[in-house]
Amino acid sequence: MLTLPSALARASLVHGARPAILDGDRAFSWREHVLRVARAAGALAAMGLTAGDRIGVISRNSREQCELFHAGYWSGIVPVPVNVRLAPREIAFVLADAGCRILAVDPALAALLESAELAPWRERSFLLGPTFDAQIDAALPVRSRDAGEDDDAILLYTGGTTGRAKGVRLTHRNIIANGLQVGLVLGLRQDDVYLHVAPMFHSADLLSTATTLAGGAHVYLPEFNPPAFLSAIARHRVSMTMLAPTMLIMVLSHPDMPKHDLSSLRIQVYGSAPMAEAWIRRAIEALPGAAVTQGYGLTETAPILSFFEHRDHVAAIARGDAARLRSAGKVLPGVDVRIVGDDGADLPAGGVGEVWVRGPNVTPGYLGAAEANAQALRDGWFVTGDVGCIDDEGFLTLLDRKKDMIVTGGENVYSAEVESALLEHPALAEAAVIGVPDPVYGEAVFAVLVPRPGMSASDEELIAHCRGHIGGYKIPRRFARVEALPKSALGKVLKSDLRTRFAGA
Amino acid sequence: MLTLPSALARASLVHGARPAILDGDRAFSWREHVLRVARAAGALAAMGLTAGDRIGVISRNSREQCELFHAGYWSGIVPVPVNVRLAPREIAFVLADAGCRILAVDPALAALLESAELAPWRERSFLLGPTFDAQIDAALPVRSRDAGEDDDAILLYTGGTTGRAKGVRLTHRNIIANGLQVGLVLGLRQDDVYLHVAPMFHSADLLSTATTLAGGAHVYLPEFNPPAFLSAIARHRVSMTMLAPTMLIMVLSHPDMPKHDLSSLRIQVYGSAPMAEAWIRRAIEALPGAAVTQGYGLTETAPILSFFEHRDHVAAIARGDAARLRSAGKVLPGVDVRIVGDDGADLPAGGVGEVWVRGPNVTPGYLGAAEANAQALRDGWFVTGDVGCIDDEGFLTLLDRKKDMIVTGGENVYSAEVESALLEHPALAEAAVIGVPDPVYGEAVFAVLVPRPGMSASDEELIAHCRGHIGGYKIPRRFARVEALPKSALGKVLKSDLRTRFAGA
Repeated sequence: MLTLPSALARASLVHGARPAILDGDRAFSWREHVLRVARAAGALAAMGLTAGDRIGVISRNSREQCELFHAGYWSGIVPVPVNVRLAPREIAFVLADAGCRILAVDPALAALLESAELAPWRERSFLLGPTFDAQIDAALPVRSRDAGEDDDAILLYTGGTTGRAKGVRLTHRNIIANGLQVGLVLGLRQDDVYLHVAPMFHSADLLSTATTLAGGAHVYLPEFNPPAFLSAIARHRVSMTMLAPTMLIMVLSHPDMPKHDLSSLRIQVYGSAPMAEAWIRRAIEALPGAAVTQGYGLTETAPILSFFEHRDHVAAIARGDAARLRSAGKVLPGVDVRIVGDDGADLPAGGVGEVWVRGPNVTPGYLGAAEANAQALRDGWFVTGDVGCIDDEGFLTLLDRKKDMIVTGGENVYSAEVESALLEHPALAEAAVIGVPDPVYGEAVFAVLVPRPGMSASDEELIAHCRGHIGGYKIPRRFARVEALPKSALGKVLKSDLRTRFAGA
Repeated sequence: MLTLPSALARASLVHGARPAILDGDRAFSWREHVLRVARAAGALAAMGLTAGDRIGVISRNSREQCELFHAGYWSGIVPVPVNVRLAPREIAFVLADAGCRILAVDPALAALLESAELAPWRERSFLLGPTFDAQIDAALPVRSRDAGEDDDAILLYTGGTTGRAKGVRLTHRNIIANGLQVGLVLGLRQDDVYLHVAPMFHSADLLSTATTLAGGAHVYLPEFNPPAFLSAIARHRVSMTMLAPTMLIMVLSHPDMPKHDLSSLRIQVYGSAPMAEAWIRRAIEALPGAAVTQGYGLTETAPILSFFEHRDHVAAIARGDAARLRSAGKVLPGVDVRIVGDDGADLPAGGVGEVWVRGPNVTPGYLGAAEANAQALRDGWFVTGDVGCIDDEGFLTLLDRKKDMIVTGGENVYSAEVESALLEHPALAEAAVIGVPDPVYGEAVFAVLVPRPGMSASDEELIAHCRGHIGGYKIPRRFARVEALPKSALGKVLKSDLRTRFAGA
């Protein structure tokens, strides 16, 4: 069955003695891990939780959080992991919206419970770590519930930073199907070791499902920083990981990088945001044994829709095809994709429109959000909200979030294209392009820039630079310079924040 | 979507210029292939066929048959490929049972239509080959029907040699899910080339679905013989194929084998019957670049349930573990397996019982066979009819078909075990063990033997030989010697035929 309990039971059966989790000096075989999961499920049952209940989770990445998730899957109790960087008020909203019965908290984050907004949860929470470990050890293992493939497995909140957060329902089939799709395309193996760097409350972490299906092992990094990342790879002979571009750039720039043995790393996925060509080249050079692969997906697609594969990076670099390097690659087997115009009809080949997808990995919808579901789910298709096109070799390229697209003087301007042009200027470290209200053009193209340390470029210089790269109407005429861009947990720039801040610019 | 039209559309989109089919001197790219499929679907529509119709197919393996199948999938017309070795009466039964509206015939097999039993089909049939090719060229391409994942894709008849043949319904999801499962475990790649040797009317051919999902190419061998097989591998740089043990043994024994360049072959699957250890060793030695892999499955499981992988062969040989070499390996991700006793309850670990399975690749049932469905599908599980056990490393070993199991003096004897013991005697080429009626013991263990050319072994000698290998009650006391064993199209010994023939022995 395409369910998580089935995946765990099989891993225990056929990979029983092989490592499932490497946690510091401890290693848990698949048989040990699944037995602990069955005991953890017993501990949850002892708390009075039953199938259909939801359990909030606030935790850094950890073996303990994995065990809790799996115990939930095992018993039909739906984990609701919450972004640890949300404000207490936002956390309280998510827990209430999801109807969580209980809250599990990382001991290192226990201070959150002292906030007034989370006070009502103090009596309904428990700490992960040694206390829950002891409860697991003491509990009797329970049999797995016979989950249906279409049952909700996890609830992941998204969009909390732009308006009301929505809970994305992901079913067992969504998650396992994507594991099979990803595993086939990336060629995962039983000797793979996956390092969980992206936060486990983020859908990107579901990329690791393929590792479980292949019988590989998991390592959890509680907090990202380059030395911790590099040490974990060398120590546990990590073969695969996923980083946001910002993280990958931090790693590649770190002086300690050459000192670590990274020879075990054979798949380096990056994603959730584009990465400048120079950094792609550097990643490929610095990680010669690794397939540098871009993943594109959404929380709603559990999570991967397409991969831009290593060989396609190499080919694009070899022929100097900068545009191809900005592609999100080719959709996975089982993923159907359409490029749809404003009238809801398919565009001719190569046309730019909204990306609609469907497949076994696509969410059945948001929790209790009829209006959002009506907008996002149309005739069996999921409306991604991304604007893009597909070239004649089948490469999907995303130009913008539809809501971030700028309309100036009747022309569409896609911020990704403008940002790419700006970032080819050596003085800029980061750039985010937004539309700001303009009395004449409706919107004006506005660039928010992070200069490289000690470097600068005047507005005139940047306009002249852009002239060689993009059409005149796309060139920003107004600029702001900041120390850092506001970003999501996985490094996506929060353009809504920028629009609010610079609305009067 | 997990449908065949989705798989084809994606292959055309993302692998458009890469080869889909290599046919003699012709090569069809995925874009060309899918366009031809859409035209072939147009040609079927011009014949008056519509979604839900069934189309009989009598053909050797060919590009043309592939196009016809895919045209059917494209339009919701269900292909019903018929075993070309059946008698005309049996073929007529299958076509009538399936309610075929029309029959497509390989020109090389057109003589079948001259039989009286198939006379009614003469007016309702058309020839594949140049005639249909011309129709495809002339037809306008049609859009694919939006198939549901649970719609029937193909109807494969099974068991026609033992009682009434039954049509196994395989849905789009069954076939595509198994392609993903197989593709992940075998690590398929876009540069793979699959040689279709097993007949396309047999479920074993569905193993090639994984090649399509990976974007690889297909080569069709119309008739198996070792020189044709070897030439095809060398000519088309074939990387993967599947052979019945008998075929693989013929290839390994052929004097021309060393003359061919087989360096492209990286996955050699064998299956549908066990293979003697000596031949497994020889295959591994003779194909040093190939992962020699046993596949176990059923028509009802579209087709693979488990793989005994190359590394596990090598490990078993290294430690002289002959029992392990008879294993069917480890179930695929997504496959749940139970070992069930006569009382319908799960047996303790290691127990010998009937193998029950479920998963996304398991048939929804037989066409119009309520009684067979009630027997085979219980509480969401499929009862395989195979008797086996699972060891503590998760290796599944099949001992017998339940109906072939011998009960003698109250003891269960599994023919596979007795056959393995017999085959370790150097004078024997093949052995099939059956139960024959016995007034004292209920059944007696009876061995039907094919001696190696110019060799012989007396009954007494064989009994003495077995004594060192298996318990006394399992040792055959009666023997018959034949020139060849009756076999199915894929080399499975037809024990029901043997039981009929030797019932009075």
